[in-house]
Amino acid sequence: MSEVHVARRALLRERCSATAAKDGPPDAVLVTRPANIRYLTGRPPYGAALLIGPDGIDTLLGPASDDTPHHEPGSHHDDELRTGRLSNPEGDTAVAAADLAATAGARLLAVEEHHLTVARHRAMASVASGLRLAALDSPVEAQRVIKDDEEIAALRIAAEITDQALGELLESILVGRTERHLALELERRLIDHGAEGSAFPTCVATGRNSGLALHRPTDRRVEEGDFLSVRLGAQYHGYRCQIGRTFVIGTAPEDWQVELYDLVFAAQRAGREALTPGMACSDVDRATRQVLKGAGHAEALGPATGHGVGLEIGEDPRLSPGAMGKLDACVPVTIEPGVHLPGQGGVRIDDTLVVRPAADGGPELLTITTKELLAL
Amino acid sequence: MSEVHVARRALLRERCSATAAKDGPPDAVLVTRPANIRYLTGRPPYGAALLIGPDGIDTLLGPASDDTPHHEPGSHHDDELRTGRLSNPEGDTAVAAADLAATAGARLLAVEEHHLTVARHRAMASVASGLRLAALDSPVEAQRVIKDDEEIAALRIAAEITDQALGELLESILVGRTERHLALELERRLIDHGAEGSAFPTCVATGRNSGLALHRPTDRRVEEGDFLSVRLGAQYHGYRCQIGRTFVIGTAPEDWQVELYDLVFAAQRAGREALTPGMACSDVDRATRQVLKGAGHAEALGPATGHGVGLEIGEDPRLSPGAMGKLDACVPVTIEPGVHLPGQGGVRIDDTLVVRPAADGGPELLTITTKELLAL
Repeated sequence: MSEVHVARRALLRERCSATAAKDGPPDAVLVTRPANIRYLTGRPPYGAALLIGPDGIDTLLGPASDDTPHHEPGSHHDDELRTGRLSNPEGDTAVAAADLAATAGARLLAVEEHHLTVARHRAMASVASGLRLAALDSPVEAQRVIKDDEEIAALRIAAEITDQALGELLESILVGRTERHLALELERRLIDHGAEGSAFPTCVATGRNSGLALHRPTDRRVEEGDFLSVRLGAQYHGYRCQIGRTFVIGTAPEDWQVELYDLVFAAQRAGREALTPGMACSDVDRATRQVLKGAGHAEALGPATGHGVGLEIGEDPRLSPGAMGKLDACVPVTIEPGVHLPGQGGVRIDDTLVVRPAADGGPELLTITTKELLAL
Repeated sequence: MSEVHVARRALLRERCSATAAKDGPPDAVLVTRPANIRYLTGRPPYGAALLIGPDGIDTLLGPASDDTPHHEPGSHHDDELRTGRLSNPEGDTAVAAADLAATAGARLLAVEEHHLTVARHRAMASVASGLRLAALDSPVEAQRVIKDDEEIAALRIAAEITDQALGELLESILVGRTERHLALELERRLIDHGAEGSAFPTCVATGRNSGLALHRPTDRRVEEGDFLSVRLGAQYHGYRCQIGRTFVIGTAPEDWQVELYDLVFAAQRAGREALTPGMACSDVDRATRQVLKGAGHAEALGPATGHGVGLEIGEDPRLSPGAMGKLDACVPVTIEPGVHLPGQGGVRIDDTLVVRPAADGGPELLTITTKELLAL
């Protein structure tokens, strides 16, 4: 893995030095966003700051406390990365890194203005007076969009774990159990199957809560006739996937349930089928959205119908009406439409897929749990 | 509860208008830090921005998605708070609030520079050209330090739940179970007993991992002779408490284990006994720290030996050598020293207590699980 991280940092350095900023290219770059640090170093990023130095030397500065693990599972030594810790327990790694950059002769330091707070930025500016700070757009986030084979392999395992956890839950008795308990049970099963943890807080929504995208599990118990919508994902080697499914509890679904399910299923399929390299992100969103719009459910949709996944659960690209850019091959995304009818409930269906050219068989579905409407 | 929130906002407004900033007092205040929004409104703060307006009107702006719950458990209607949602799903609530402030006639808007990113701050500055942005130090955080009876009651329940969850675990068989599973089990029990969730990620550390403050549970199994250190806390009505205990697994502890335990216990007791109104925060830290220093374990200590708790798990005051300020009555804090011997393991003992004057019986211990060294 370590050569991978060295190469990623080399690419970042190259991209930044080619920047046509009004101040010219920066001669040093400071990375503080945790997922970006992890991507570029393979190290746990808690409270750290990564300086891509003016002298060709990269330094990862950690906080003073010696308590955090030094290596993640599967990581190897990276000889080209210097590491250090602050001696002052109250110190700020970004401020110390700015000082280090100035000492190493940097004059223009590019920083992640979308991550640094105003207060930290000001403290950095005041500590190193000869140093100017510039905005680093989001080159690391851009680098992270297309995944390499090892990253996709980690996502594939995360999805397998997720499918297993969900499959086991479906075999158990659900009626009478609370949303909270079902969510905890799913999270336990993710760990049982080898996940580092949940990719995001597990969502279990029953009855009139079903179909809500951001619902937080309550003490409501599963009842006969409910829609039950679940959304979960495993994290494996840092990579996070997402699945969402909706079931009917008890005997046979009612007509409105079947209709709504079929509609969301059709929308989700339309989105999946639109996933080809070169397709505009907004067009994928439109493919999903227009099915629901046609049925009068335009209002029920959130701002996006999918998003990239990787070291974070919500990454670029975003699949929304206002999204810019086109899809590339080897970009993992979710397709996740849903309709919630207030007071009644609803349906969500989420998959994680990797964009692939038609010649390679089209989009690779990672989350393979059935999307038939199961009556449990 | 709603009158409480109205009064909290009135106090904030009063404090801000008395500010002797170089630009004069701000005529509007924007609050974006989630815990601060919750403190001032009782509402879920996800992605929201709270404008304390120049016209005496307070407005809580939420994101466009209609998916978040509108009320937290136990909250009531607050007639004096206007609420709104963005119409643009891609919009930023802070930027919209700045616009609203300018429209309402504000000329100087105080913002939380310790929370806002540089990028959001810039977007706010550009949207409302007649409006200047000033730094709002941390008046809401300062208001949050001393808790009222209702807040302390919530913390007391959180601590009860935590003690129950921990007590049940101690009655079960521990040998052979992994850190990960024990942590999940504790989290499930917190929910069983009525917690909204964990106050922070539960830490279970065995053997050579024991005594690490920020250890993340691994697949290591509990073995005979291990130290087992756990750290957990419930969240109840938004309020978070913390307990930490260390046990010995199996028959009788070894001598070094008893010695180390007694030492950390003595340090923790010294810290607890130093908790009186008017005591300097750094002196409480010193009381804890000097016991360990005297035994040659100064290096093993982290930067702080305790901190405030409330809507966040790490709040003001901080109990550390560099801390400023003194304790007040009705301030809940943790006392949490620990010593980790690399390669060997260690001990942590954490309590949550409320500072009370000696006339009221001294510090109120919320987390009452025994601190004897139990051999399990």
